[in-house]
Amino acid sequence: MTISTTTLLNDVDLDAVAALTEAVRADAAAGATTWRADVTWRGAFRSAARVRGFADLPSDEPAALGGTDGAPNPVEQLLAALGHCLAVGYAANATARGIEITDLRVQVRGDLDLHPFLGLRPGHAGFDGISATVHLAADAPFDQLAALHEAVVATSPVGHTLSAPVPTTITLATTA
Amino acid sequence: MTISTTTLLNDVDLDAVAALTEAVRADAAAGATTWRADVTWRGAFRSAARVRGFADLPSDEPAALGGTDGAPNPVEQLLAALGHCLAVGYAANATARGIEITDLRVQVRGDLDLHPFLGLRPGHAGFDGISATVHLAADAPFDQLAALHEAVVATSPVGHTLSAPVPTTITLATTA
Repeated sequence: MTISTTTLLNDVDLDAVAALTEAVRADAAAGATTWRADVTWRGAFRSAARVRGFADLPSDEPAALGGTDGAPNPVEQLLAALGHCLAVGYAANATARGIEITDLRVQVRGDLDLHPFLGLRPGHAGFDGISATVHLAADAPFDQLAALHEAVVATSPVGHTLSAPVPTTITLATTA
Repeated sequence: MTISTTTLLNDVDLDAVAALTEAVRADAAAGATTWRADVTWRGAFRSAARVRGFADLPSDEPAALGGTDGAPNPVEQLLAALGHCLAVGYAANATARGIEITDLRVQVRGDLDLHPFLGLRPGHAGFDGISATVHLAADAPFDQLAALHEAVVATSPVGHTLSAPVPTTITLATTA
């Protein structure tokens, strides 16, 4: 009996990332991706999102906002997406640099004034500011970690989506 | 025996929304909210987000991007958050206008060029564009639904967060 074991740094399949990078380098069109989510309203402020074949992602609002508090609300999910995205960026870039991550946590918070959402004044209804603090324990000197951090921030899809003005088109298609 | 039943339009607790609106109108500081998500890396491109006391929200990447494909990825979660937010906005504003919603689905899609994420060129790593199509069946004439749509788009916290440049600060705090 032969037992074959491969230990991957940070458990990251760097070959897959390298293969994708080479494919996109060879054919720019391979880098053009489209992502989707389909949301169905479930009554009150509850809804369910379907992404590919995964189990529905539920959403609700706290009672103070008129919801039944059955799940994180949309703005909390947005903050979670940023934290997840930074974790992926750290795992990918650290592995490419040969840095082993011992522990990685990302605390995300955002401040939001409810006046526009409640219709009390017009203007920006979104987050006024978002901050993420990355708590990293890794086997590398600080200057390497600072360079790693810079690379992650410079390439974060969710981070850039939040910090840049993204053309967002919302269209009504009545069905009855 | 007395049976008391209250039927809420769209199942929405409009009294709670009205009470919050009045509280914020009376004291502007009551409209200042802070939201949080704490993300923990789980190895490879897997992570888990904790929001208040809810069950962890998992995240992963597709195999083509080097992940183990165990959950929607961060950019898909971002699109889902937009769909959820629009559903809440529709439910709240329709109810305030006395419009009954029969069916509401939101299809969200976003286009993203992987070159910056993969380090193949600098620049905007986020979505280049996001579109949401709202499929609405409701008991009201089209001009009322068009006005409803306009009100929802004008007050969507996630919609505005994506379409505006939000100050986003990402800080490294090494722990070892």
